[in-house]
Amino acid sequence: MTDRVAIFDTTLRDGEQAAGTRLGRREKLTIARQLARLGVDVIEAGYPNSSPEDFAAVEAIAQEMDGPVVCALSRAVASDIESCGRALAQAKRGRIHTGIGVSEIHIRGKFGDDKYGKTVEEKKARMIAMAVEAVKLARSFVDDVEFYAEDAGRAEPAYLFEMLYAAIEAGATVVNIPDTTGYAMPEQYGALIRGIRENVSNIGKAVISVHCHNDLGLATANTLAGVKAGARQVEGTINGIGERAGNAALEEVVMALRTRADYFGLTTGIRTQEFSRSSRLVSDMLGMMVPGNKAIVGRNAFAHSSGIHVDGFLKNRETYEIMRPEDVGFEQSSVVLTARTGRHGLRDRLEKLGYALSQEELDQTYQRFLIVADKKQEVFDEDLVAILHDEIHAVEDVYRLDYLHFYSGTSAIPTATVRLSVKGVMHERAATGDGPVDAVYKAISMVAQRVVKLVKYDIRAVTGGTEAMGEVTVKLESEGRSVTGRGASTDVIEASAKAYVDGLNRLAGLGAA
Amino acid sequence: MTDRVAIFDTTLRDGEQAAGTRLGRREKLTIARQLARLGVDVIEAGYPNSSPEDFAAVEAIAQEMDGPVVCALSRAVASDIESCGRALAQAKRGRIHTGIGVSEIHIRGKFGDDKYGKTVEEKKARMIAMAVEAVKLARSFVDDVEFYAEDAGRAEPAYLFEMLYAAIEAGATVVNIPDTTGYAMPEQYGALIRGIRENVSNIGKAVISVHCHNDLGLATANTLAGVKAGARQVEGTINGIGERAGNAALEEVVMALRTRADYFGLTTGIRTQEFSRSSRLVSDMLGMMVPGNKAIVGRNAFAHSSGIHVDGFLKNRETYEIMRPEDVGFEQSSVVLTARTGRHGLRDRLEKLGYALSQEELDQTYQRFLIVADKKQEVFDEDLVAILHDEIHAVEDVYRLDYLHFYSGTSAIPTATVRLSVKGVMHERAATGDGPVDAVYKAISMVAQRVVKLVKYDIRAVTGGTEAMGEVTVKLESEGRSVTGRGASTDVIEASAKAYVDGLNRLAGLGAA
Repeated sequence: MTDRVAIFDTTLRDGEQAAGTRLGRREKLTIARQLARLGVDVIEAGYPNSSPEDFAAVEAIAQEMDGPVVCALSRAVASDIESCGRALAQAKRGRIHTGIGVSEIHIRGKFGDDKYGKTVEEKKARMIAMAVEAVKLARSFVDDVEFYAEDAGRAEPAYLFEMLYAAIEAGATVVNIPDTTGYAMPEQYGALIRGIRENVSNIGKAVISVHCHNDLGLATANTLAGVKAGARQVEGTINGIGERAGNAALEEVVMALRTRADYFGLTTGIRTQEFSRSSRLVSDMLGMMVPGNKAIVGRNAFAHSSGIHVDGFLKNRETYEIMRPEDVGFEQSSVVLTARTGRHGLRDRLEKLGYALSQEELDQTYQRFLIVADKKQEVFDEDLVAILHDEIHAVEDVYRLDYLHFYSGTSAIPTATVRLSVKGVMHERAATGDGPVDAVYKAISMVAQRVVKLVKYDIRAVTGGTEAMGEVTVKLESEGRSVTGRGASTDVIEASAKAYVDGLNRLAGLGAA
Repeated sequence: MTDRVAIFDTTLRDGEQAAGTRLGRREKLTIARQLARLGVDVIEAGYPNSSPEDFAAVEAIAQEMDGPVVCALSRAVASDIESCGRALAQAKRGRIHTGIGVSEIHIRGKFGDDKYGKTVEEKKARMIAMAVEAVKLARSFVDDVEFYAEDAGRAEPAYLFEMLYAAIEAGATVVNIPDTTGYAMPEQYGALIRGIRENVSNIGKAVISVHCHNDLGLATANTLAGVKAGARQVEGTINGIGERAGNAALEEVVMALRTRADYFGLTTGIRTQEFSRSSRLVSDMLGMMVPGNKAIVGRNAFAHSSGIHVDGFLKNRETYEIMRPEDVGFEQSSVVLTARTGRHGLRDRLEKLGYALSQEELDQTYQRFLIVADKKQEVFDEDLVAILHDEIHAVEDVYRLDYLHFYSGTSAIPTATVRLSVKGVMHERAATGDGPVDAVYKAISMVAQRVVKLVKYDIRAVTGGTEAMGEVTVKLESEGRSVTGRGASTDVIEASAKAYVDGLNRLAGLGAA
């Protein structure tokens, strides 16, 4: 068996699914480029049959990538698989990921209908037939087909083995054994993988893949137990994002394999120095914060807070350190960005952050950068990310904020005045509110004359001091569609206004406002 | 061997140590009360010899608690242990936790000086003698002494066994086997615990405790492996906070033991429905956010985001759910708080949130509650927590914000006017800035006439809509002391002003501003 473990990233599929924010084609492409730079073997780019937007995203990633395999998800349903086939048509190396539930609870829950068979035995036979058809259909589009046996962790072993044998005979090149609900204990999950190796006679023709969830905090441990038992592909996400408590965090799994090479004796193709950047990019794009104490990529993961009981004692960093921050890409940026930084310096830094922009995008971003650099002594990486969210995600503007003024205070009624251009026509309104943000939103709503529900309002300071950029994220709902709007400014109230207007424009883009 | 696992919470010691925010006596007491309600067996309250404030906190908790054991930390140093003895003098059930490093890397790193012996063998013998002295001294104060063998995960087994034998003979009732650097794999850590049970002949006289760190994402798995191998005390923190990537998260360990009782056959005394509340209280008190996908206590831990590949399919919640949200205390508050809610209703809700206030504190909080309730239709739990941070952490005020006014906008220069009372004398100033927050801070600084460095500025919306409370946290530094100031308001700029003034008052309380 090879001693190289393939890394399968599903940030763009299982991760995005959970974030509450749908990524557009360009956002997915930006992340895919960073994943390629990180060195993952497989990028699961999406579920093409779920929406035209996701189809377009998978197609664009498939066209562009020439290193990693690009994978698309489907159920064991012909229309799903055909959609994957079309989206991957131009992939250099495409993979279709299809499968079916195998635990009794899934069989009864999802295939309860009599059309799948009257008895459990009939249903089981029917599902194996569906799996075989699905794999064969997928193989008619691509040579590389991964089969998932959903909820394998709770399946009856004999049936699981039978299902896997059939899928491999039908042409599956990878078999994925998910612990869908995060229920397994490491020892048990390892035994499951070992059992598959020992009981599925054609298993030598396929790679075993592990896919673990973190409901009990064991995703990394289960993944590693699977690898120790012979799995040679690992599925997970950057930052461990994903359904419910998330998926296995790839940075944890890979750094455990590397730090404990003495125990595993295995390698991966990952450039671990890209982890920090990958983590930040995914966090920014999906608006999902990484806590300071997140293993490997958290801000404090390597911070030895001069632990009180080690005060004067610490003579040797190795005493408390098993990895070095630079191994995962934590380093101080050596170049300080100021108003005198040229376009070239800006482009360099943006590429270091994982953003590859076209000339036109760079020009726009540079203009905005100069405005911020004028106000601030030094522009931090976080400021740049905030600027980018303003610029590169720009949608076609129905609404444009032309003028904003507000005042408030301990003995003033918060009051805002706005002028908005709506399809080129200027409208002005003033309103009062509970605070300046509320007043601004009321004034904008009066101009927009739309029934839009503000579902969520999030604000954060993206860098340290008060002259920092504030970034605001809003979730708006209208006519059953929901969108996320973002805005950034050194003035938090202005950032709030921009986020709201951005959300309105996105709704307008969907025809929902 | 008993089938009950004791739960040892070190949120107030190992957790606080990492947070960058020191908790005061009253804040620690508030958390300790909630831990008692959660049903932990042991509360590690602090490290008394580290500061007079921490001594006072441990003493106060020891005086009040009549359920859980109250534990205090020390090195194997007489002054540390004596300090613990004094702080625990009035404890109903006190425990001293003392110990020493046992790995060769710790021995060389921390005990390199010749005074500990010239050869490694001499140093090792000297350290066993120090451990024995420390345990004996601790036993002169309390009957319950826990001995930690620091970095046991990397220690030479024979030496570790020898050390533990000596500590138990000297009177240790619990032996703690920390994986200090988070380096161990579950299988190895389990084997270590098993080795201790098999090779330390007097181990029957002590309980084995496991203490795991999360550097490779394996703290929960290692803890569980230790328990499976015979440990009967688990150390960890709420939300998994702690040094670097944190400690084992108690909510994960306990819910794994409970959900997989079929595998472990073990019980704990934890009231799991208190987890959600405990998590929120710790997060609020320490200003350490819990990410949405945190296992067990994250906002999305039980959110099934109608996974795209399960669309219409999901017939049965059990298909994807191994725990119920109500098991860990997620539930909608049934009583809506409004301006018509009386003092009694407010007190009830505060107690549900884990805050037990004196009559005077309740009165203050109620006045503030009425002001917020007047502005908002409904006051959420998060609003209450924000109000409490304003009220109950109040320090004696040198500075008081009397008046605040600001304006800003797209074509206005952000300008703020403040009137501050400084020791009772009013001062007014106006200033401009990059945004309204910056302008307000400049104006306040002009009044305060102090050189204070703003190290960190954090802002968050504590509830959903724009009429929500904003909460601002600032970290200020002056003359080598640093403090955290907090402020809450429906107006984010006002919240920012309050946080800054709160920070100034805390610095003044330290004599540093």
